[in-house]
Amino acid sequence: MALVVQKYGGSSVSDAERIRRVAERIVETKKAGHDVVVVASAMGDTTDDLLDLAQQVCPSPPARELDMLLTAGERISNALLAMAIESMGANARSFTGSQAGVITTGTHGNAKIMDVTPGRLRTALDEGQIVLVAGFQGVSQDTKDVTTLGRGGSDTTAVAVAAALGADVCEIYTDVDGVYTADPRIVPDARRLETISFEEMLEMAAAGTKVLMLRCVEYAKRYNLPIHVRSSYTDKPGTLVKGSMEDIPMEDAILTGVAHDRSEAKVTVTGVPDVPGYAAQVFRALADVDVNIDMVLQNISKVEDGKTDITFTCSRESAPRAVEKLTSLQDKIGFTRVLFDDLIGKVSLIGAGMRSHPGVTATFCEALAEAGINIDLISTSEIRISVLIKDTELDRAVAALHEAFNLGGEEQAVVYAGTGR
Amino acid sequence: MALVVQKYGGSSVSDAERIRRVAERIVETKKAGHDVVVVASAMGDTTDDLLDLAQQVCPSPPARELDMLLTAGERISNALLAMAIESMGANARSFTGSQAGVITTGTHGNAKIMDVTPGRLRTALDEGQIVLVAGFQGVSQDTKDVTTLGRGGSDTTAVAVAAALGADVCEIYTDVDGVYTADPRIVPDARRLETISFEEMLEMAAAGTKVLMLRCVEYAKRYNLPIHVRSSYTDKPGTLVKGSMEDIPMEDAILTGVAHDRSEAKVTVTGVPDVPGYAAQVFRALADVDVNIDMVLQNISKVEDGKTDITFTCSRESAPRAVEKLTSLQDKIGFTRVLFDDLIGKVSLIGAGMRSHPGVTATFCEALAEAGINIDLISTSEIRISVLIKDTELDRAVAALHEAFNLGGEEQAVVYAGTGR
Repeated sequence: MALVVQKYGGSSVSDAERIRRVAERIVETKKAGHDVVVVASAMGDTTDDLLDLAQQVCPSPPARELDMLLTAGERISNALLAMAIESMGANARSFTGSQAGVITTGTHGNAKIMDVTPGRLRTALDEGQIVLVAGFQGVSQDTKDVTTLGRGGSDTTAVAVAAALGADVCEIYTDVDGVYTADPRIVPDARRLETISFEEMLEMAAAGTKVLMLRCVEYAKRYNLPIHVRSSYTDKPGTLVKGSMEDIPMEDAILTGVAHDRSEAKVTVTGVPDVPGYAAQVFRALADVDVNIDMVLQNISKVEDGKTDITFTCSRESAPRAVEKLTSLQDKIGFTRVLFDDLIGKVSLIGAGMRSHPGVTATFCEALAEAGINIDLISTSEIRISVLIKDTELDRAVAALHEAFNLGGEEQAVVYAGTGR
Repeated sequence: MALVVQKYGGSSVSDAERIRRVAERIVETKKAGHDVVVVASAMGDTTDDLLDLAQQVCPSPPARELDMLLTAGERISNALLAMAIESMGANARSFTGSQAGVITTGTHGNAKIMDVTPGRLRTALDEGQIVLVAGFQGVSQDTKDVTTLGRGGSDTTAVAVAAALGADVCEIYTDVDGVYTADPRIVPDARRLETISFEEMLEMAAAGTKVLMLRCVEYAKRYNLPIHVRSSYTDKPGTLVKGSMEDIPMEDAILTGVAHDRSEAKVTVTGVPDVPGYAAQVFRALADVDVNIDMVLQNISKVEDGKTDITFTCSRESAPRAVEKLTSLQDKIGFTRVLFDDLIGKVSLIGAGMRSHPGVTATFCEALAEAGINIDLISTSEIRISVLIKDTELDRAVAALHEAFNLGGEEQAVVYAGTGR
């Protein structure tokens, strides 16, 4: 008998029929003798519908009230799930984030979990109940206001609750049946990974793999909590995210997969004085307007005039903010121009095996060259190579790298459309 | 400067436009220099939509989870209202029943308010905020679970919160612009009452007047809190419910109005042994299955055989339960038959003036007789006469009584369709 936490996304509970299917799976897990805690997102389009309503009454809704509004979505889906479970003869009790003891910071819309005090959940489990926790939400430590965790928040709720309860595993049910060597929508022979270490999963997530959000993997790594990624529509074995890369014997270390990311834009600041302190001014300005930098490259454009160019990537949403802020500081910093390009994509190769296999970078670049794809920017970590290319060449790049490193499998992947929360 | 509590029903906040209209009225009250607390119901059809979803996942949903589900409705409407208010430049903060300190019994679906601890509301008011409280909901004292108050719950929330905050008045915005001498849909010249005492309003509500729920008036009476019934669609003066009937000088006491009720059924138990204890058995049986009795009549049917008939009315929903329970006890109690009739209606005349005007009962019966309406059952209180008649004759009876007692006015009433929560 284990304590299992299961998380179901919005597409898994998008209507009454799917809710009953999910309930069936939950009841089966309980009947197999396990204690079960479930975290569910809001039903399919609920969040979008509520956002739409908010827009109609207020062009820029206050964050506190937006959180009050949106959290109603998970309350509805979790209560319905509890009812469906009860109709199948099992006992269930649903809890809001606040009731479940999910304590967060006060940043509405993007709160961080600070602590989970799962007293009520524990009591319900001890009474033999199936416990349901509304995902994506918590209560702020200082003001006791309702907060939301931002994108992927329900995954984080699941992992945090699992860690607080000392669960054996956190199962994340999603619209793919595991983590693949590449996006199966782009590479049909992409292979499902049976296991992947936390570090590799972190790099995959950071490089654009959408299966798990970065924050949720970070949380799981910190508490050494295995995450089992599975499909809500099949009984396939999925992918187990667990263990440290350090524990994998060098000779068994492999290349994990190819990730891609279409969500970034590239900004270049040209003619920055090549003197200590000027680059720092640029990045301080970006931090001031809350722009997260991903890749960075600084190169000297014209040695003779002591100027340099700074190129960086950030999310497309934040790019206009970055450009605006930098432009406002042009005279102060004294650079020449700010260039902006959002017709770019990032493709990355990830794998602990990179450490023991020399020549990976060479093969990487050769594969792209053979496909006639030009590299704009390169950035690497110990277990990742990322390059920036044209967005129109992204799919071809993913396929070429997947092929070049022999990452393919036999089986066709099953893919469903899903939501992001 | 006063502290004003305003309550808006579901039809007043049924879409984005109406929410903005209500927000406008709230902001005006605030700008007039008052502290404002608002209690809003769920948007128009939300509750029905959620109930429908619940039915789809579970034929008989557990009450605790139903409360979790339904309370999402008020959370949505109140958050939207807060946003609309903010978009008009005022500051607003919405609170769930639990956050507002609405402490209730644990009876899910029909909880009673035990206490209101409005600490957070007071703080927000002190900070100059317009405060919004989700109606119809609270938190149970024992289990800390979310509860709902049952029909008319938002009115009760408003009155209870107003009493706890020591508000000057509780304004209840509804789909009619006040309390009328009769239902304006039946009697076009029904007259709006400027004021009505708590006792009279209680009798009106108990006799079927839908403007205010019984429980809410009882609460207001207990705390001597004036209720101002107004229309959300007009600026008409409405009706003020306040003060005790005892304080009205005898000579000023008048007849208040005619109320009617189509929601009851009549049950007759025939051939009950006319011996002490048998009637008690009948009513104990009804109490056991939670049937509330309204009118009761016991008459001896056949003196010679020592048997009697007991007739009572109860709500149509509970009548089948009553019949079933009584039938199951037929042998034990030893009565002859249980008769059931739901083709009935109740019409009542209410007024403190009844005490000082002899002959009211005579005029009452004459008016019905002249209209050719047969009386099935009579029940009276100090300030009320109620009779049971055929349901098809109810409208005519209301009109005849309203006419006979000269209750009409000059002005036409304005009527809108509304919801009941």
